Amino acid sequence: MENNIVDGSTRLFGIVGDPISQVKTPQLMTGIFRARGVNALLLPFQVAEEGFESTMKGLMSLRNLDGLVITVPHKVRACSLVDSLSPRAGQVGAINVMRPLPDGTWSGDMFDGEGLVRGMEKQGFSIAGKRIKQLGAGGGGSAVAVALAAAGADRITLCDPQQSLAQGLAVRINHFYPRHPAEVTTDSAGTDGYDLLVNCSPVGMRPGDGMPAPFGEFDPALGVVDIIMHPEETPLLAHARRCGCRAMNGRPMIEGQLEAFCAFFGIRQS
Amino acid sequence: MENNIVDGSTRLFGIVGDPISQVKTPQLMTGIFRARGVNALLLPFQVAEEGFESTMKGLMSLRNLDGLVITVPHKVRACSLVDSLSPRAGQVGAINVMRPLPDGTWSGDMFDGEGLVRGMEKQGFSIAGKRIKQLGAGGGGSAVAVALAAAGADRITLCDPQQSLAQGLAVRINHFYPRHPAEVTTDSAGTDGYDLLVNCSPVGMRPGDGMPAPFGEFDPALGVVDIIMHPEETPLLAHARRCGCRAMNGRPMIEGQLEAFCAFFGIRQS
Repeated sequence: MENNIVDGSTRLFGIVGDPISQVKTPQLMTGIFRARGVNALLLPFQVAEEGFESTMKGLMSLRNLDGLVITVPHKVRACSLVDSLSPRAGQVGAINVMRPLPDGTWSGDMFDGEGLVRGMEKQGFSIAGKRIKQLGAGGGGSAVAVALAAAGADRITLCDPQQSLAQGLAVRINHFYPRHPAEVTTDSAGTDGYDLLVNCSPVGMRPGDGMPAPFGEFDPALGVVDIIMHPEETPLLAHARRCGCRAMNGRPMIEGQLEAFCAFFGIRQS
Repeated sequence: MENNIVDGSTRLFGIVGDPISQVKTPQLMTGIFRARGVNALLLPFQVAEEGFESTMKGLMSLRNLDGLVITVPHKVRACSLVDSLSPRAGQVGAINVMRPLPDGTWSGDMFDGEGLVRGMEKQGFSIAGKRIKQLGAGGGGSAVAVALAAAGADRITLCDPQQSLAQGLAVRINHFYPRHPAEVTTDSAGTDGYDLLVNCSPVGMRPGDGMPAPFGEFDPALGVVDIIMHPEETPLLAHARRCGCRAMNGRPMIEGQLEAFCAFFGIRQS
């Protein structure tokens, strides 16, 4: 491989999403491959919702593709493309990684939740015993809520414009983590009585987006986490900073799961 | 892009073939992209013959894919996936490049023949007025024979284990280039009376391959061209060298079409 970037033997990985230009996984994972002397690239694959299954089946048929990372808006739908799920991915009902097994079947797992929890712990956010308000109950939101419950949250209050998503997620958390219950609210903007506000909705990612809810002034004691990575400071995080809150964006979430990606994809430790 | 290799905005190109590890287009084209400051990669895509159309349609649905190079064994079959062919590709009945147009349709072209002719001219092989024996009448072979006729070959004698391929190619050449006629032979090994021997069969590419025909000693005046790039010296070229012949491998053919690829893909001149 030497100083080359790519040759005919380069193994391929990809991150599948739409939009795709904002993702950081290609540069982060490709950097790890190179540091470890692995002739591989992780590429951005912009896959639209329309025709998702057939596009994915095409990618999955590439003989030199060794794995895919799945991001917005495909984390739930990608579940139906794999033959086996980890128990964690089964609880969440969504995957963010999939890989081919030697027998030709595909296996899926979900590391978003653990990645976020690990990132929050590194940044000094404690989760155990906290009352948490979470916006967004899609694929990423499901992973986050399950991981927050597993990390000992006192109570998780879910809000999503599609209320059935929030309801379904609450039912699953209350089934798997009855001592760390979840509930649903339609009040997106209220933050009184919460220790942490976590945004798992995509609002704030696209240019021109505002906050995901019409928030008033935050109590400076409220911790605010946004799983969006790009822009680095969403309107929500800018508001939190102005209110004197401790705030964190989504970058620690992805950085917190790079090692898990490597283990899942069989990339050896350096 | 700076010193990075890939990010979420990287545009994708690919070369589609099976096997794929031997191709040189990824490093050559990616080197050009970087020299010109274009944030793009050309990747190896190993696509099997089984399921070719559905795999290709998956790749063609990627929103950040800007073009594909097609190589063995897919050059003929890929024709059926594009909506429009250049006149040259229509004559050949095969393509080695395809790209999406702004209206969502795909366009195909074929540069193998011109690439080989340009490479041969650079290496001092003259074509005009020469009697040429050509082995292999598949996608690449069709492009080569058409370009050799267009470059003024006196006569082209075609030999392929699938004789119908050779027959069909001869018919097309005699239709489009009646003053530079083609004929068919079943004698693969005979070289008496020829000025040039051109191998367009895949024999010699895989480890353990021998020569594409049971050749005897060559006349040192015979020019020998093999369009295979890897290994650099096929058994045929080693034999030609031992016989004192002027010999050339397939690398000049691909190098001779890199500028044509750039123009076709809309990569600007540096």
